Amino acid sequence: MSQVACKLLFMLEHPSLKALLDKQAKQHNVGTVLGLLGWDEQVNLPPASSDQRAHEMAVLSEIHHNLASDSSIETLLQPLEEDWAKLNADEQCVVKNSRKDYDRATRLPTDYVTEKAILDSQAYHAWVDARGKNHFGAFAPFLKRQVEMSVKGAELMGKSDNPYDYQIDLFDPGMTADTIEELFNTLKEELLPLARSILDSQVKAKTEQLKGFPIEKQKAFLTEVAETLGFDYQRGRFDVAVHPFCSGNACDTRLTTRFDEDVPLDSLFSSIHETGHGLYEQGLPIDQLHNALGQAVGMGIHESQSRLWENQVSRSREFWQHFEPKYRAAFPEQLTGLSSDDLYLAVNSVTLCPIRVDSDEVTYNFHIILRFELEKKLIGGELSVDDLPAEWNRLSKEIIGLSPPSDKEGVLQDVHWSGGMFGYFPSYCLGNMIAAQLWYKALEEIPDLLSDFSQGKFDRLLAWLRGRIHQHGKRYDTQDLVTRVTGEPINPKYLIKYLKDRYLPLYS
Amino acid sequence: MSQVACKLLFMLEHPSLKALLDKQAKQHNVGTVLGLLGWDEQVNLPPASSDQRAHEMAVLSEIHHNLASDSSIETLLQPLEEDWAKLNADEQCVVKNSRKDYDRATRLPTDYVTEKAILDSQAYHAWVDARGKNHFGAFAPFLKRQVEMSVKGAELMGKSDNPYDYQIDLFDPGMTADTIEELFNTLKEELLPLARSILDSQVKAKTEQLKGFPIEKQKAFLTEVAETLGFDYQRGRFDVAVHPFCSGNACDTRLTTRFDEDVPLDSLFSSIHETGHGLYEQGLPIDQLHNALGQAVGMGIHESQSRLWENQVSRSREFWQHFEPKYRAAFPEQLTGLSSDDLYLAVNSVTLCPIRVDSDEVTYNFHIILRFELEKKLIGGELSVDDLPAEWNRLSKEIIGLSPPSDKEGVLQDVHWSGGMFGYFPSYCLGNMIAAQLWYKALEEIPDLLSDFSQGKFDRLLAWLRGRIHQHGKRYDTQDLVTRVTGEPINPKYLIKYLKDRYLPLYS
Repeated sequence: MSQVACKLLFMLEHPSLKALLDKQAKQHNVGTVLGLLGWDEQVNLPPASSDQRAHEMAVLSEIHHNLASDSSIETLLQPLEEDWAKLNADEQCVVKNSRKDYDRATRLPTDYVTEKAILDSQAYHAWVDARGKNHFGAFAPFLKRQVEMSVKGAELMGKSDNPYDYQIDLFDPGMTADTIEELFNTLKEELLPLARSILDSQVKAKTEQLKGFPIEKQKAFLTEVAETLGFDYQRGRFDVAVHPFCSGNACDTRLTTRFDEDVPLDSLFSSIHETGHGLYEQGLPIDQLHNALGQAVGMGIHESQSRLWENQVSRSREFWQHFEPKYRAAFPEQLTGLSSDDLYLAVNSVTLCPIRVDSDEVTYNFHIILRFELEKKLIGGELSVDDLPAEWNRLSKEIIGLSPPSDKEGVLQDVHWSGGMFGYFPSYCLGNMIAAQLWYKALEEIPDLLSDFSQGKFDRLLAWLRGRIHQHGKRYDTQDLVTRVTGEPINPKYLIKYLKDRYLPLYS
Repeated sequence: MSQVACKLLFMLEHPSLKALLDKQAKQHNVGTVLGLLGWDEQVNLPPASSDQRAHEMAVLSEIHHNLASDSSIETLLQPLEEDWAKLNADEQCVVKNSRKDYDRATRLPTDYVTEKAILDSQAYHAWVDARGKNHFGAFAPFLKRQVEMSVKGAELMGKSDNPYDYQIDLFDPGMTADTIEELFNTLKEELLPLARSILDSQVKAKTEQLKGFPIEKQKAFLTEVAETLGFDYQRGRFDVAVHPFCSGNACDTRLTTRFDEDVPLDSLFSSIHETGHGLYEQGLPIDQLHNALGQAVGMGIHESQSRLWENQVSRSREFWQHFEPKYRAAFPEQLTGLSSDDLYLAVNSVTLCPIRVDSDEVTYNFHIILRFELEKKLIGGELSVDDLPAEWNRLSKEIIGLSPPSDKEGVLQDVHWSGGMFGYFPSYCLGNMIAAQLWYKALEEIPDLLSDFSQGKFDRLLAWLRGRIHQHGKRYDTQDLVTRVTGEPINPKYLIKYLKDRYLPLYS
């Protein structure tokens, strides 16, 4: 990859625009520092240093909030909004998103923001505790308050007619619960029989044979994989953390993974997943780093990038045609008993599992549909928190095909709701759908794309994604961007086709 | 070490004091974040991410400066200063240092601060370039401006009668050029014949035999050494960087070192040196973290701590009685040809070298005396920048005993002057003197201290330093603290005695 120096250029057409962009740059720089503090906390922080880090983050967060809610932003936005028709589309994008951010920073009263921050912290610790003790009742009061705060937040923002839509829009601009519901219903209908036929198959992956992969060698292998896919280490890093994540920005993109000697494919595919997020970040326009044109659309598009590289690309035969010899060279003894077909099947293993994050790409979607249906009812007032565990177990049986053995492995498994992050889960499944839809479009436009992979070449795909998705920043909302690139809004048929194409030949 | 949680407690005796301490806490937290950004830049930053980091640091520095120069600090300081007699000694320490910081932040006009920041950056790059090309002339105009700015800065702060004293006080509160000159003259007089007799000795250390020390094993060994000395990894880290340094604070102390397979003692003693700095930081009162009572006195005292652990402790026979078996177990083949005496002599090797940072603890002092004499004349107007290289080479021959083969290895070797950091160099030698003086006091109060070391015990020495030095923060200025602990102000006789005690038996 090229060694792109990080330059910061701004558009200067409107007299208020430069001032607005300068303010955004300052605020965004404080934001990237907050991001680094978070990364450092996960990767480096000594165990007894967390109190001091919490104080540092509180001080920086306050400074960030003061910058975001500075009333001079309103003074700059008004003339720009009055001159709306004179602005070009990019300038409109910047102004529209600035308005959204400013309203979010100023319309919620300080009392609400403070109460929410305290609740987030209390609810997180209550969740950790409740999960440890497998005792939902200890978490329930906090979850109830998070549901109330979510509804109240939407009301304060003037979105009381549909609070769940307000939540969803926070993560996927322009998306609504109705749209998602329709997509998920179609997906569920098609996916249930497909999953059933795979799970009932006599063919079983031998993943349990993959044991004793030394961590240093795993690290070297996946470092090379990420670089081959196009990750630019000149402006990025790969480190170890408890949970894999991608943080940073286009100028400094930091990936993490975790290692287990006996579960090497988890680390490998988690790493490729995070690399996908990282490739998106590194593809965003560096010269617009601090404004909407240099920032990701939302979680659904972000997840489409990680999923496309993780699944469509790296679970393909052609990917393994290139990487299998290297994998065997790195782990000759560990892979002795496995044929190429065994290895390929292990990479595409499908099993029912109560835990979302341990699920394969087929059954993972059920986990998301479950959560979507539940949180829609919770926010809509159709389901009480007290009834949630029973409803989780009932729906889990119906959608996923199993009831979790305990709340710990069921309703208490995810952190998201403890932070009131309703509307976040759907992004994971939207990402899967968008990834498949982009994938078939890429194959249509580059018919011999797969033959690249068997030669270890991924630059044509990356260039395609850069041109179609990455370079646009927030220029288009989720649905508009998907439509622009593929000719239609999100359509679950591509994900279904992809899963059938990949899994039916393997498991029949 | 104990797992001390980082608590933040403040004194509340005076109505203005709590408000002042709250402001200081906020400012100091921004300062520790700036420290982390600097650490991350040295340890983690991807090569092409430096521009963005520079922008982040500029934004945070501006925020930090705005907090430090906030006029409400003046409003809080005035009633505290009016009630001076009512304040206890600790409160007076906090107020006195707040006043000093506030005046420094406000008395220098913005024009001066901006000009200096730009000059620092330009002069740094000019120095890198000039050193690379061995061309002093390319650096000279920048150094001239730094000298001018230094004189002007002292003038703006009302210290035009002795600008070099103003500079020195920035690094060692209360210290003056006259005091230092007297100390250095005595030291030089005694040290020259001692160094001569060591260098003329037939005894020569076999350091060139120390080759091929695997880096991972070096790392494991020195990690253990630092822990044995008392470094608390619960609130600290050890990483790799281009130059060894210690950064952070009592709650999160971060050390770095560098490795060379063929120069293992450099890495080991650099690491112990930084561990000494880290032990001081970790010994500062955590509950006063954000004010003067929780912060280091100055560079001379800081350096005394690093030097004491590096030299008095870790170059002792007793230290090696404990660690030699462990060192041999880690590097059995590499140490095969060396007897215990050979190893001990290698640890205490003395050779003439033009480069300060590569020099041993005997000749190192000459390098500092050289720089002190030159910068005193530069700031005093008795030496022009154009005449500096010739004067460097002449004095170098006179004091160190050799002229550098080139300006690159002479006047251009150190980064300090490019940043206008005149008055910093003396701290290194003051640190050496204070270390030896503390050392003999510790031996007087704990007569069997050395026998601890041969058993791998360092807790009595650490507790002694914690009680005498660390716990006081900035409560006493450099000379006051030394006097309080040892009964007299800094006296070079202890360093001379120490060097004679250590080196004469080895080299006679």
